[in-house]
Amino acid sequence: MPAGAYPRLLRGMGDDAAVVRALPVCVTSVDAMVDGVHFRLREGWLTARQVGWRALAAALSDLAAMGALPGEAYLVLGLPDGFGERRALELLRGAKELASATGTALAGGDVVGAPALSLCATAVGWAHTDSELVGRDGGRAGDLVGVTGSLGGAGAGLAVLEGRASAPPSGAELLRRVREPLPRLREGRALAAAGATAMIDLSDGLATDAVHVGRASGAQLLLELSSLPLEDGVREVSAQLGVAPWELAAAAGEDYELCFCAPESRRAEIEAACARAGGAHVSWVGRVADGRAGASLRDERGHEVELEGFEHRF
Amino acid sequence: MPAGAYPRLLRGMGDDAAVVRALPVCVTSVDAMVDGVHFRLREGWLTARQVGWRALAAALSDLAAMGALPGEAYLVLGLPDGFGERRALELLRGAKELASATGTALAGGDVVGAPALSLCATAVGWAHTDSELVGRDGGRAGDLVGVTGSLGGAGAGLAVLEGRASAPPSGAELLRRVREPLPRLREGRALAAAGATAMIDLSDGLATDAVHVGRASGAQLLLELSSLPLEDGVREVSAQLGVAPWELAAAAGEDYELCFCAPESRRAEIEAACARAGGAHVSWVGRVADGRAGASLRDERGHEVELEGFEHRF
Repeated sequence: MPAGAYPRLLRGMGDDAAVVRALPVCVTSVDAMVDGVHFRLREGWLTARQVGWRALAAALSDLAAMGALPGEAYLVLGLPDGFGERRALELLRGAKELASATGTALAGGDVVGAPALSLCATAVGWAHTDSELVGRDGGRAGDLVGVTGSLGGAGAGLAVLEGRASAPPSGAELLRRVREPLPRLREGRALAAAGATAMIDLSDGLATDAVHVGRASGAQLLLELSSLPLEDGVREVSAQLGVAPWELAAAAGEDYELCFCAPESRRAEIEAACARAGGAHVSWVGRVADGRAGASLRDERGHEVELEGFEHRF
Repeated sequence: MPAGAYPRLLRGMGDDAAVVRALPVCVTSVDAMVDGVHFRLREGWLTARQVGWRALAAALSDLAAMGALPGEAYLVLGLPDGFGERRALELLRGAKELASATGTALAGGDVVGAPALSLCATAVGWAHTDSELVGRDGGRAGDLVGVTGSLGGAGAGLAVLEGRASAPPSGAELLRRVREPLPRLREGRALAAAGATAMIDLSDGLATDAVHVGRASGAQLLLELSSLPLEDGVREVSAQLGVAPWELAAAAGEDYELCFCAPESRRAEIEAACARAGGAHVSWVGRVADGRAGASLRDERGHEVELEGFEHRF
């Protein structure tokens, strides 16, 4: 990593630690992925390059959910015997590609032996002041609930990879959602600046992640499942699986879109800012209310969907 | 982690990422440990608490080697099936104890399934300016080479744990060196402030780590093996193993002491600063010279010791 490519990076790999010129507020997230637990390299779900990409994507997505500026990433590779240098370099190449695409400096790491391929990514982001950032805890009764982009693509793509469904003609994006998810860093910053009061990235799935926001905010997120923006091809895959499309969109997870709360007065500003920043469309999927802290999902008939165990279906 | 205990910590666990009030320069290191590769939990070398302690110690030791102020730590636990909550909490307790002892906030983490117990620690430290920090690359011909504390204890302790030697009466500290190494954070800052020109922590062993300093500095570290400060009990264990004591001190690694270069004019200041900071004695073990960049080790008869393969004996 040439220090010159990232002016903030004063010392990169090759010393005991990386040294970075800081902004006033530091935002840090760690995330790990293990072969056989989070993906299956042997079954060809992902190439080594895509494994490296994904490991970093999950940690960067957390920075997006705070509205942080991307900064540096650190990657620890646990390599099993015989993994080989070629594939290790491919892993690194995938991580570097995403780092480069998001303006992140891959600034350090470690390589150790391990019984299964495992990756641990640390992503560090920055802000000029704490008030630029958005936590999970700021949602207030009356706020709207929005999501970026489209949902269900990763869950549908995984079903295709696992052979539980075949890819529909319209589903070109489904596999990419699983293999090369794009963290919504620019949208996250734009949403924070445009007045989002609470934000989370959709890694576990909206059904679970909305509960986190509701609990942290001390309010109830009321979500309309019929409003969820479905990725192209999700309807067809859900039909093959015999489940409702919103089940893939709300429970399968790993779409790495953002879910956020914002006052209704900011609606137009939010939509415009998000489109300008990264091009992601905003869909309004519910509202924050007083009541039991958490989230409540209603289907197209207005019936509340039981969340207990819901997130474990996929 | 209550944010109040660490005033710099604005948001700890429970949000997408931790948020920390930064100093102007950020220093980051990552380190991983895997059961069966770096330790053997099943054979009783370490308790779960000690595994947590050690994982953090290695990352914090890198911060010490830069002369950074300790800041935050992030710990990812990869837990095998059946590891159990009790032992997972013990791991965390060990990491928290060391964090607390060093003024570090354990500010975040992740828990995933893994085929073997694995830990990935990220340590973040801080400095007011880049010039407060010391890299590996500043050693200059004429500098003295010093080390903190005593060496060989971890290698001798490991030999005792593995049953290759018995613990001598004077060797009370040997097992503690393996199980609960104390990163030299205060000494590292004191050495940096007192004029150290290059610094590294002794994780691989002096024979290897001095080569890193020499190569980064473009100079040759000439080290006298007879000057190495031996931990009590190392002589006795080395006699049982049939090796010279300096082999444990220079090649076995994991003592987590600091090795540094400094101008001879700073000698008294360095010794006093280090003693004041953390109490570690400084031993002068060699000198920096022009010549082939790297390190050269001489035994008590003045013969150069061949480094090729040397570090792989333990």
